[in-house]
Amino acid sequence: MTADAAIAIRPIGRVRSTRVATGDDGWDAEQASIELDDAFEPDALAGLETFSHAEIFFVFDRVAEDAVERGARHPRGNPDWPRVGIFAQRGKDRPNRLGATIVEIVSRSGRTLVVHGLDAVDGTPVVDIKPVMAEFLPRSAVRQPAWSQELMRRYWS
Amino acid sequence: MTADAAIAIRPIGRVRSTRVATGDDGWDAEQASIELDDAFEPDALAGLETFSHAEIFFVFDRVAEDAVERGARHPRGNPDWPRVGIFAQRGKDRPNRLGATIVEIVSRSGRTLVVHGLDAVDGTPVVDIKPVMAEFLPRSAVRQPAWSQELMRRYWS
Repeated sequence: MTADAAIAIRPIGRVRSTRVATGDDGWDAEQASIELDDAFEPDALAGLETFSHAEIFFVFDRVAEDAVERGARHPRGNPDWPRVGIFAQRGKDRPNRLGATIVEIVSRSGRTLVVHGLDAVDGTPVVDIKPVMAEFLPRSAVRQPAWSQELMRRYWS
Repeated sequence: MTADAAIAIRPIGRVRSTRVATGDDGWDAEQASIELDDAFEPDALAGLETFSHAEIFFVFDRVAEDAVERGARHPRGNPDWPRVGIFAQRGKDRPNRLGATIVEIVSRSGRTLVVHGLDAVDGTPVVDIKPVMAEFLPRSAVRQPAWSQELMRRYWS
């Protein structure tokens, strides 16, 4: 298979967050919301408040094109952890620079969705929001390597 | 906030699946894999086999631009279910046409990732793959409306 043509996507809104600087850890301390673009009617978010969680899809737009890893590397550059493919880690320096995080929904009012547990800085472009349904969560036991648990130790708090 | 400039993303690979026709239900019966583009070295997937699950990000490229819903609608057009915003449902006719599904990893060999539980037809462009880490799953109880459970009843099998 050879390279494919680009697909254009467009931000549907922006992250508003107390976190303005990028960084790896401590995301639970932040207050965050998503502000839907004025081009959408507020009812595009209607009903999200009947779900406890949503998955937020965003673009790591602060990552420069030449920083993108296309092969393998040590996560966070840590030589104590194995060298694995960029698609076997969740780091931001990835092809297409897409981020996706499941957050708690705090409230919804018009075009504003207040959330908890969003690991994206203020101003980040949002490209989709999906409700979390239990049927789309893992349906068998989750197994993951030890390095990923070490990496996540201080991620949220 | 006003409309933003488009962001170009590029397929990293394609879905190979026994499902060639689009349709709503019965996805567990299909055999599926993801074939990474030749532009990537095979080690871009290395280590994924140490995880039990991955999330596959793809584009619903069969959806015509004028079929995209930007406001609210009844899920699957079913008047028995409430009219909710497109971002409060997971239907394909959505802005940016992005899909995201957590699958079981069956095996990984070179540029081929064999998976189970992928709800995308043969040929679908894949734009990202992320490993599933328990720390990124919901950290509090999941609540969802009854209509979403009814909708999902035959989704997998």
